[in-house]
Amino acid sequence: MMKVVKFGGSSLASAEQFKKVADIIHADESRRYVVPSAPGKRFPDDTKVTDMLYLCYEQAENGKNFDKQLNDIKERYDEIINGLNLDLSLESEFETIKNQFNAKAGKDYAASRGEYLNGIIMANYLGYEFFDAAEGIFFFEEGNFDAENTNRVLSEKLSSIEKAVIPGFYGSMPQGIIKTFSRGGSDVTGSIVAKAVKADVYENWTDVSGFLVADPRIVKNPAAIDTITYKELRELSYMGAGVLHEDAIFPVRKEGIPINIRNTNAPKDPGTMIVESTCHSPLYIVTGIAGKKGFVSINIEKDMMNAEIGFGRKVLQVFEENGISFEHMPSGIDTMTIFVHQDEFVAKEQKVLAQIHRAVAPDTIELESDLALIAVVGRAMKNNSGVAGNIFTALAKAKINIKMIDQGSSELNIIIGVRNKYFEDAINAIYGVFVTQK
Amino acid sequence: MMKVVKFGGSSLASAEQFKKVADIIHADESRRYVVPSAPGKRFPDDTKVTDMLYLCYEQAENGKNFDKQLNDIKERYDEIINGLNLDLSLESEFETIKNQFNAKAGKDYAASRGEYLNGIIMANYLGYEFFDAAEGIFFFEEGNFDAENTNRVLSEKLSSIEKAVIPGFYGSMPQGIIKTFSRGGSDVTGSIVAKAVKADVYENWTDVSGFLVADPRIVKNPAAIDTITYKELRELSYMGAGVLHEDAIFPVRKEGIPINIRNTNAPKDPGTMIVESTCHSPLYIVTGIAGKKGFVSINIEKDMMNAEIGFGRKVLQVFEENGISFEHMPSGIDTMTIFVHQDEFVAKEQKVLAQIHRAVAPDTIELESDLALIAVVGRAMKNNSGVAGNIFTALAKAKINIKMIDQGSSELNIIIGVRNKYFEDAINAIYGVFVTQK
Repeated sequence: MMKVVKFGGSSLASAEQFKKVADIIHADESRRYVVPSAPGKRFPDDTKVTDMLYLCYEQAENGKNFDKQLNDIKERYDEIINGLNLDLSLESEFETIKNQFNAKAGKDYAASRGEYLNGIIMANYLGYEFFDAAEGIFFFEEGNFDAENTNRVLSEKLSSIEKAVIPGFYGSMPQGIIKTFSRGGSDVTGSIVAKAVKADVYENWTDVSGFLVADPRIVKNPAAIDTITYKELRELSYMGAGVLHEDAIFPVRKEGIPINIRNTNAPKDPGTMIVESTCHSPLYIVTGIAGKKGFVSINIEKDMMNAEIGFGRKVLQVFEENGISFEHMPSGIDTMTIFVHQDEFVAKEQKVLAQIHRAVAPDTIELESDLALIAVVGRAMKNNSGVAGNIFTALAKAKINIKMIDQGSSELNIIIGVRNKYFEDAINAIYGVFVTQK
Repeated sequence: MMKVVKFGGSSLASAEQFKKVADIIHADESRRYVVPSAPGKRFPDDTKVTDMLYLCYEQAENGKNFDKQLNDIKERYDEIINGLNLDLSLESEFETIKNQFNAKAGKDYAASRGEYLNGIIMANYLGYEFFDAAEGIFFFEEGNFDAENTNRVLSEKLSSIEKAVIPGFYGSMPQGIIKTFSRGGSDVTGSIVAKAVKADVYENWTDVSGFLVADPRIVKNPAAIDTITYKELRELSYMGAGVLHEDAIFPVRKEGIPINIRNTNAPKDPGTMIVESTCHSPLYIVTGIAGKKGFVSINIEKDMMNAEIGFGRKVLQVFEENGISFEHMPSGIDTMTIFVHQDEFVAKEQKVLAQIHRAVAPDTIELESDLALIAVVGRAMKNNSGVAGNIFTALAKAKINIKMIDQGSSELNIIIGVRNKYFEDAINAIYGVFVTQK
């Protein structure tokens, strides 16, 4: 058994949190490769170290003095070092950082130091070897991740290290220039390491006990999800339930390595297992409910539309040419509705409408804005013919009008459109049917 | 008040039926323009005169003797003439037909004689003037209907005729060559005449008392629809509830002329009014339920599909390039399902799949065949939030698994996909909710 464990910023925000992390790591000998984030918030109004670094580097880039900003960052780390009673000084590292900032080493370099320094502390505290991610995670010159080279080098180098700390979030481009993943990218690093060392499981430690069936800002004390498939997660995470960085799925998925989302503050909770496939029956028919506000529907009507081969393609082409991705396209015989993101669409609205008129000469086009989309997702839905009936009966009881319904042959999800203002009520109504009233 | 009245083949199959038709016409002075079909079946195993004509002409075209076939047809008409005690002979008309058949005047000419001869009898019987459709309904040389020229000439010529019989189904191309509409085209003729004379209503007399909420072969004694909008009808008629020829809608629709479907055998029944729009509340929330078997779903999955602008367009383009029209395209985040007609798809299946692979490199493509689509249509659905809940609860009770759901912002219809074998049960279950248990 071998595990890669990644800890999020809130799990590493203070010495107290570091102690919890060390307890977790020491509790299981197989937790051999550790990927730390930068220190996160210690309290709600706190600033994450990554944000402090961005700010500090901005000063440097504008030629302003950044001593105070850099010192504030050093204090954050010293507080952890002292809290852990470590015999460790980051003086020389901060000297290097100062020089690099003055030399304008780049925003990515600046941001990456949060994980880099945290990794040094973590390695020292655990007695693990520190392995700089710049030595094993590579990007092409244009900035795309170089999966092949990374996997080859990382596998080889880590094979000779029994226990290592590999800072998350960054890697290097040719000539050693530091490059980061997008924000939250330590999740991706953990996944890449898990693939390279052929881990049995990739534990992703955060501040929640796994995924919840619904957003706790909308549903009160929602139930946790014990097992979710990658497919289910994709259908949910896009809609806003993102605990995990999207790109973290792909490296481990292809290797069949499950991701276990765990809670540093409640290490006994089993958390959520994310798996390729499972015969594990879900607790509820619906695995999760997620959604997003801010969509526009463009409803197109034309007599005999249905007989016109190419109609749908031509309409989609207009959106494509304007760089607007469409979300869903339910259709009747002579009607077709396109759902797009309101913020992507608004500025181009009249241009898009004019182009649709030219492309397919519709009888009418009607717009409706301020719509929300809700995805009800569950691998168990396929074998339960009552799901749709229950959902729509619940919505009717809550007096919520349905603007769109979309369910394809995968039977993994039902997408429902409602007005923005009914979004929270709709999610609560659906949650009520499948979980509370279970 | 002025009405154009069209009578279908079964309304004119025998002298007895002609008498009913005359009673109907004489009961209302405003029924000034009459469009007859050719004589239809007198009994279930009977042959329609149009089919007899096609067969007869086939003999002629193959250089075979067709005297018997033509004589059988003449006997059909003579039976009507004698039954009505008319002082009328069609000898010279049949002489002309025989010569034209020998001269290979064309299949369209042959088929059109059914309406032509019936029109002569009808005009004689009613004391109306006979107006040959070849003199007022025109096609371009390539065979497309010439709406503009037709309307101009027909308006002018009919303005000087108080009461006329205009045979349905055909018109003429340049040089007087006879051309027919597609089968059932007398409906189209009636609509064109109604537009030309600016009728107040276009009565379409057939053998049913209007449209029914569901197919009587599936639902026992379904309720009749009193008023339906053109849009509702389009959403239903395509799916197989075709009492009226599709192309019959367009000429009158733009003129705001309602079509009244009536029953020659029950003339007191009010039938169904087809209107552009109405504040007439429908009897039931659902105006009609119609469907069709024989669809295939192509379910495409690909990680991050949703982030790929142009994905949907590229997939639809493959179908378009293969001349396959898609019916519906429900989608999730990383899944997309295309519904197409099985008979259009089967022969090109592997070619289409290969092209989809090349176009968008999906992770998986799964096919499911033998699916049926059901359209639940109703203008009142928009204001009733319980419709979807009721439908899907009814289907769940009937233990019918749902393969697809599609409802757009028009809120005029919900399209449901089920396996072919559940098609009839599904329609009965939905009918039960909205009509029987009303």
